[in-house]
Amino acid sequence: MISSKNFSGADNQQERLEISWWIVGIVDGEGSFLINIFRSPKAKMGWQVFPEFNVSQSEKDLVILKNLKKFFGCGNIYPQRSKTRKKKWTPLYKYCVREREGLKEKIIPFFQEHPLKSITKKSDFRKFVKAIRLIEKNEHLKLSGMKKIIRITERMVHRKPFRKSARAKFLKSSETIRRAAMHN
Amino acid sequence: MISSKNFSGADNQQERLEISWWIVGIVDGEGSFLINIFRSPKAKMGWQVFPEFNVSQSEKDLVILKNLKKFFGCGNIYPQRSKTRKKKWTPLYKYCVREREGLKEKIIPFFQEHPLKSITKKSDFRKFVKAIRLIEKNEHLKLSGMKKIIRITERMVHRKPFRKSARAKFLKSSETIRRAAMHN
Repeated sequence: MISSKNFSGADNQQERLEISWWIVGIVDGEGSFLINIFRSPKAKMGWQVFPEFNVSQSEKDLVILKNLKKFFGCGNIYPQRSKTRKKKWTPLYKYCVREREGLKEKIIPFFQEHPLKSITKKSDFRKFVKAIRLIEKNEHLKLSGMKKIIRITERMVHRKPFRKSARAKFLKSSETIRRAAMHN
Repeated sequence: MISSKNFSGADNQQERLEISWWIVGIVDGEGSFLINIFRSPKAKMGWQVFPEFNVSQSEKDLVILKNLKKFFGCGNIYPQRSKTRKKKWTPLYKYCVREREGLKEKIIPFFQEHPLKSITKKSDFRKFVKAIRLIEKNEHLKLSGMKKIIRITERMVHRKPFRKSARAKFLKSSETIRRAAMHN
């Protein structure tokens, strides 16, 4: 049984293959590829872009997240509280990769080599890669680039519908327009 | 890319292995092993036991469920509607295996050969198998057997907490007590 083993100890090629495809399955089910943006007065455009790959699990299955972290060799685990029933709080944990290097060197190549099978997740991943490529070219420091990134991510699955998201607010923000005039 | 292929066409051993472990991952994420019971006046104990294995997906990823059905060669796909956001209904679909043969010959052997990795799902599967073994021995036709089944499934993850479930109601039902007196 692989479950009790350390994923990173999967020297055996066969075992690594099994774990890899299991990871694709769990990410098809529980994973997210997100492009978040937040107001940040210090950022050139007044907003910062944060790409994030994450997988959530309940506290009982925290070991899965620890093993994912070891497998990918990047990212961190954060606690979060989620209201699943009216009066009951179930502790949830999230394995997150936010650092550019980890996303570029580990996460993206892994899912290019082991493609996701769910149409929605595969499409999110494709957009995620496109957005990261633009960020690498520093496009997020220009209004036109930010608009491109936001257009790409508009149809991605996020917690909030697009029109209520920070990405939509960015487009409407007077600050955006003011800074754009300054920088473009 | 395997995603566009028919899972059942996985003659190639390597490919079948990849698909198998991907299935374990998606079931660790989105699958359920349930033991439901419903009132049924015609049943000997006044209640019927329904074991069910299921995997849910949004409409967009219906193809995944179709492929699971082909892979296992049993079960059916049912539409269900789920309220995910206050005013928005997202169509969901469920691949369900309820028939005894499919569970016994396909689902159980598959997950015995390819063990689940999440602690909660693995524990649910173990209890699910135990309950089905009791049903096979017709234990569900006796009050003592039903009580055994209910005790096993008490800590399984179901939609409702145990004390609000039909399984808990069964234990308290005057009908149960009356029938038990008749049959035991």
